[in-house]
Amino acid sequence: MNREMETARGFYDGLRRLYQERLPFNRLLGLSVTSLDSDGGAMAFSMREDLIGNVFHRTLHGGVISSVLDAVGGLTASASLMVRAAGLSDEKVKAMFAQVGTIDLRVDYLRPGRGERFTASGRIMRSGRKVAVVRMEMHNEEALLVAVGTGTYMVG
Amino acid sequence: MNREMETARGFYDGLRRLYQERLPFNRLLGLSVTSLDSDGGAMAFSMREDLIGNVFHRTLHGGVISSVLDAVGGLTASASLMVRAAGLSDEKVKAMFAQVGTIDLRVDYLRPGRGERFTASGRIMRSGRKVAVVRMEMHNEEALLVAVGTGTYMVG
Amino acid sequence: MNREMETARGFYDGLRRLYQERLPFNRLLGLSVTSLDSDGGAMAFSMREDLIGNVFHRTLHGGVISSVLDAVGGLTASASLMVRAAGLSDEKVKAMFAQVGTIDLRVDYLRPGRGERFTASGRIMRSGRKVAVVRMEMHNEEALLVAVGTGTYMVG
Amino acid sequence: MNREMETARGFYDGLRRLYQERLPFNRLLGLSVTSLDSDGGAMAFSMREDLIGNVFHRTLHGGVISSVLDAVGGLTASASLMVRAAGLSDEKVKAMFAQVGTIDLRVDYLRPGRGERFTASGRIMRSGRKVAVVRMEMHNEEALLVAVGTGTYMVG
Repeated sequence: MNREMETARGFYDGLRRLYQERLPFNRLLGLSVTSLDSDGGAMAFSMREDLIGNVFHRTLHGGVISSVLDAVGGLTASASLMVRAAGLSDEKVKAMFAQVGTIDLRVDYLRPGRGERFTASGRIMRSGRKVAVVRMEMHNEEALLVAVGTGTYMVG
Repeated sequence: MNREMETARGFYDGLRRLYQERLPFNRLLGLSVTSLDSDGGAMAFSMREDLIGNVFHRTLHGGVISSVLDAVGGLTASASLMVRAAGLSDEKVKAMFAQVGTIDLRVDYLRPGRGERFTASGRIMRSGRKVAVVRMEMHNEEALLVAVGTGTYMVG
Repeated sequence: MNREMETARGFYDGLRRLYQERLPFNRLLGLSVTSLDSDGGAMAFSMREDLIGNVFHRTLHGGVISSVLDAVGGLTASASLMVRAAGLSDEKVKAMFAQVGTIDLRVDYLRPGRGERFTASGRIMRSGRKVAVVRMEMHNEEALLVAVGTGTYMVG
Repeated sequence: MNREMETARGFYDGLRRLYQERLPFNRLLGLSVTSLDSDGGAMAFSMREDLIGNVFHRTLHGGVISSVLDAVGGLTASASLMVRAAGLSDEKVKAMFAQVGTIDLRVDYLRPGRGERFTASGRIMRSGRKVAVVRMEMHNEEALLVAVGTGTYMVG
């Protein structure tokens, strides 16, 4: 394996661990990273009683949906920084991840959050030196589109 | 106490119980309703280890902020329906609450979510037959504005 | 030509005329409808001196971009009402168009609005009885994505 | 008049001229700057036949509203840069204005845009080194709130 591939593997492994294992609220939601590369990332989670927001219809809380879209947006914005990671120390990469932050977020709730398993993915729309814009989508296990969103992230 | 005041008290009590005690995800976040009338509502919650989203800076997860703003927005949109509740049975009022749903949400993260206790409040900007628009704010215990948001809610 | 096709042709012709010829501000911007069917619509316009917003870089005003995205979003939301038009009189269809209105709009400016000819298109994300959500995109003549947006429209 | 006041006067005069006289699309809309200081700015314009977007109700085009909110948001974001202008040459201040750009914009249409004269104002919510967030409002001559918005601007 060459140097470049090693850097990439270390970068994505670190990012995956951060979002899946080290961010307390992501763990509370039960998020796992299901794909991650330079094109973006995807995360999945399972329905649980305490994620319900509408007790009449037993659907996901809108806040769970916005949280997961924000998480996968941040993951995607961070993944886009891979090109800057070449040759950086682990400390520097960590500092790069630490400064990624959401500036603003829009979520559109398209269908009631009904299902057993949900997957959210992000796609970079703008990748600047200072600011990244990501579009996100969330589907349930029947591939129905539950929500879409757009996030603007500070990346430098 | 006259009839009208009784209706109002029953309406707000039911709404408070719904948002504070009966919505599972609101309970997971530890939200309590701190004020509620026809002008809108407010909710508060305390910092907790598992609400952290940035382990480097130990600040609130953006998703916690968006969740709480969405919750207080829904509470405010529901409170604005008080004028329609006069003379309705408890079942009808419950049905009215059940159909309140977020159409879309925008959140602006103004400062890192640092603090011990956070309060979010909502104010009705548009109150139509079908759609309500609410502006929301979240402060920490030092009265620093952490985030603002705008939500559009289906109300009929 | 059967009855159904006639209804569809009349519906889309009326909608095209409305957006291209009868809305004064669309005419001021020089918008023309370049495609229109049940999947959505597209509109195009040419760069002009008085559409400039940044005199230093000679790029489109952000307001021109938001205006065109809002216009194509409204066109797309209106086009989605075709299914309701069957058997309606011209007056009723006109009344249907008259009540389509933007509830809210988000625009993400991805690149400077540089170019000679711009095309914007819309795609329905949610098509409810009362509310429709549309995602929009604007490209320049080199197929560079200049901006994306999301609009929520009242449709009933 | 001391040096500092002179800088401030030159700064605001330049900014006012830029937004009122030099931006072609602002001139097409007929915008004039009605107030401007470190707290933000305000702009006004008059109803005109060619600003109409709904021919049935004869109300402002949603794009006119989003354009004016974006303009007053940019004006406000630029005004917040006054603190950086001290001691800078005119060329440097001009370069500072040139790089102010809208990252994203949300507009909430609260009431039909009916009236003879409209005023829009902006207020800074976040004023960072790289990014500013502004909340905007538009009223008609009867002080009715027609629309609100939020814009995120690149400022450095």
